[in-house]
Amino acid sequence: MPAKKPAKKPENMKVLMKRIFAPRTTVFAHCDLPCGVYDPAQAKIEALSVKAAMEKYHASSDPDFKSRAVAVKEERSHHVKEHLWVLWTDYFKPNHFEAYPQLHTLFNEATKLAGAAGTKGSNDVAVAEKLLAKIDEIADIFWATKK
Amino acid sequence: MPAKKPAKKPENMKVLMKRIFAPRTTVFAHCDLPCGVYDPAQAKIEALSVKAAMEKYHASSDPDFKSRAVAVKEERSHHVKEHLWVLWTDYFKPNHFEAYPQLHTLFNEATKLAGAAGTKGSNDVAVAEKLLAKIDEIADIFWATKK
Amino acid sequence: MPAKKPAKKPENMKVLMKRIFAPRTTVFAHCDLPCGVYDPAQAKIEALSVKAAMEKYHASSDPDFKSRAVAVKEERSHHVKEHLWVLWTDYFKPNHFEAYPQLHTLFNEATKLAGAAGTKGSNDVAVAEKLLAKIDEIADIFWATKK
Amino acid sequence: MPAKKPAKKPENMKVLMKRIFAPRTTVFAHCDLPCGVYDPAQAKIEALSVKAAMEKYHASSDPDFKSRAVAVKEERSHHVKEHLWVLWTDYFKPNHFEAYPQLHTLFNEATKLAGAAGTKGSNDVAVAEKLLAKIDEIADIFWATKK
Amino acid sequence: MPAKKPAKKPENMKVLMKRIFAPRTTVFAHCDLPCGVYDPAQAKIEALSVKAAMEKYHASSDPDFKSRAVAVKEERSHHVKEHLWVLWTDYFKPNHFEAYPQLHTLFNEATKLAGAAGTKGSNDVAVAEKLLAKIDEIADIFWATKK
Amino acid sequence: MPAKKPAKKPENMKVLMKRIFAPRTTVFAHCDLPCGVYDPAQAKIEALSVKAAMEKYHASSDPDFKSRAVAVKEERSHHVKEHLWVLWTDYFKPNHFEAYPQLHTLFNEATKLAGAAGTKGSNDVAVAEKLLAKIDEIADIFWATKK
Repeated sequence: MPAKKPAKKPENMKVLMKRIFAPRTTVFAHCDLPCGVYDPAQAKIEALSVKAAMEKYHASSDPDFKSRAVAVKEERSHHVKEHLWVLWTDYFKPNHFEAYPQLHTLFNEATKLAGAAGTKGSNDVAVAEKLLAKIDEIADIFWATKK
Repeated sequence: MPAKKPAKKPENMKVLMKRIFAPRTTVFAHCDLPCGVYDPAQAKIEALSVKAAMEKYHASSDPDFKSRAVAVKEERSHHVKEHLWVLWTDYFKPNHFEAYPQLHTLFNEATKLAGAAGTKGSNDVAVAEKLLAKIDEIADIFWATKK
Repeated sequence: MPAKKPAKKPENMKVLMKRIFAPRTTVFAHCDLPCGVYDPAQAKIEALSVKAAMEKYHASSDPDFKSRAVAVKEERSHHVKEHLWVLWTDYFKPNHFEAYPQLHTLFNEATKLAGAAGTKGSNDVAVAEKLLAKIDEIADIFWATKK
Repeated sequence: MPAKKPAKKPENMKVLMKRIFAPRTTVFAHCDLPCGVYDPAQAKIEALSVKAAMEKYHASSDPDFKSRAVAVKEERSHHVKEHLWVLWTDYFKPNHFEAYPQLHTLFNEATKLAGAAGTKGSNDVAVAEKLLAKIDEIADIFWATKK
Repeated sequence: MPAKKPAKKPENMKVLMKRIFAPRTTVFAHCDLPCGVYDPAQAKIEALSVKAAMEKYHASSDPDFKSRAVAVKEERSHHVKEHLWVLWTDYFKPNHFEAYPQLHTLFNEATKLAGAAGTKGSNDVAVAEKLLAKIDEIADIFWATKK
Repeated sequence: MPAKKPAKKPENMKVLMKRIFAPRTTVFAHCDLPCGVYDPAQAKIEALSVKAAMEKYHASSDPDFKSRAVAVKEERSHHVKEHLWVLWTDYFKPNHFEAYPQLHTLFNEATKLAGAAGTKGSNDVAVAEKLLAKIDEIADIFWATKK
């Protein structure tokens, strides 16, 4: 990787991504090879999309747009579920579940929050925020297991 | 989200993610609603998976595993292409292409590097690294347009 | 798999299916509407396909056929995971997890058995049989909750 | 297919499933390996989901929910078509079509009933019931060929 | 591309395609809306891809490339089946089946030729050519019904 | 279908399709093997479907049908994007981009016209017609490179 311009801001993604993939950071796995690359960011990005779609739903009065927003929210909610299921089955091992006994329930609640009883069945932004909070809790544990 | 301490530590993903979504960070879009959520990290995560699959391919002598590694690499390479195409078409606007005249070529080369002439047709880790470098170049521009 | 009552009759599937859908049988849910139609048979059918693909793999000496068998096994194993995840998240409710405290672990183990550490990464028919046994355990609980 | 005994018992699915997979039960094919595992139950489960989605559509007055119900019905109807097409092409052989000359028409009508002229284009529960009846007719023949 | 045999018949694809876009030709349907846009060219393009993948398979001695060729052939063969099934169920109506009594068998044979007993299970270019010939027969009838 | 302007030019699709299957035309590639089979007709067929769905949307007063038409238009618009992206990345080579400097912009505009700012976000038939015109421009160049 060639030399880069100095990072101007610690907040920009580029810098963050560099850190994510810096040598000392052990990373990841999500393809059942397994390739070893996992990252809760995937679920989070989709959940942010769910929340944004809800906000756009409320801001619009065009029924076709609202219908599209609901459909997008449905699809993106499903992606959230998929990414979380993969983490739960493929990344976390028995010793993790022992160390974090709340982990099963956390994942079950998070995926439910992305389903019919959650962001699929609701346009309430607060529900998307609950989902995001659960994903953050999962990410905390995920990164703790990486240390 | 409050101001951040300067980065000095083996900062875990959680912290990084917090910054990603800190208020001052404008975020993104990828679902054609459009929801406004875009992030080159999606392409990068898949490209890392491609590279990891190649490494596992070389490390194994089991023909079935090697065959699975090639198939996973194929699928993940395709995901890279998809994520990049979405950025190119849906996120970048005419003014961006004016400001960064190399952008079209960059995306075309990056997606080719994830295709038959790139990581799909090769098991050479150096090809995956070229792909990763291209994605980094794209991410640099992406985040520059976010400032 | 627990001991079974001896099969009394050469009862064919048709008869069984008729009973399944007889008016008094309450049935099921799997689409996040939710439509209320769930059925562990979906996971079981795919797992049987996994096992059959392994058997055909071993019975063949044609490398292209063997490669196809591995690919089919990969895809069908993924379907098993999907069907099980849906049951775990969408059908089972907190009261079920209280009544059957082993349920989380059972699903986690079953989906792992359909993944890289299980039928995806192995051609061992015994692994497919373990997967089938886990699905049977889940089905037992599923149907018990339906009573 | 012989005459049926009247259903005497509230037999639950679990018991039925055990019988389905009892050693003497010949089982079946659906993946183009071919693995040899076929089962009309897959189409039936999806068709039940279509019918349930219609019922929920009529029971609701929430336009977003109704829109979701229509979308779910669309997707599940498509799954019905897929499962039936696979049976028609991959399971049934020329000798079956000779023995059951109505089979082509039956499948063509059943798949049409799951399409735009059927459950996709209609919310009429009676249409879903016609589709279910056609699937039952197909299942009768399927199981007869298994004897 | 090497020299070709002279086109023997007006039924060849080239001529058919001319008809597709001829002014007087009302066009088409394939999405279950139904939108009314159908076109046997979709199946043909995929079948040409199947044949080309076989040729590349035979021309290569790289086992990874050969494995990729088999996988591509598998996927494209499936697309052929899908496009043909859609035509059979969604475009053709009872009056067509009366007028062309061979149509059911033709579609059943063509889809079988794209399945495990055909281009999926074989690398024989002659099998792909048989498939292409069947698609041409179907296209002939399709365009005849459009007149 | 309303009266049309007379076809002005030999560049129209009909003429192009004639060229596709003309004996001297070397054919094609779209699967990343690469198999060498590419064809802008795939994008065009999907775009025609988009336009037809819009017309059916306007002709109907059934809200469920209109909702289905919007969903179909969404899906088919996505297929247009996919087919165009594949051509842009996989078929066109650096020498083509040199010879046709407008090609990047053309593809970027065409895929945008099939996205949220185009046929996904609009029911305006004129937008679909603009998309079709762009695809025709691309097809002109495509076939010129085949000569």
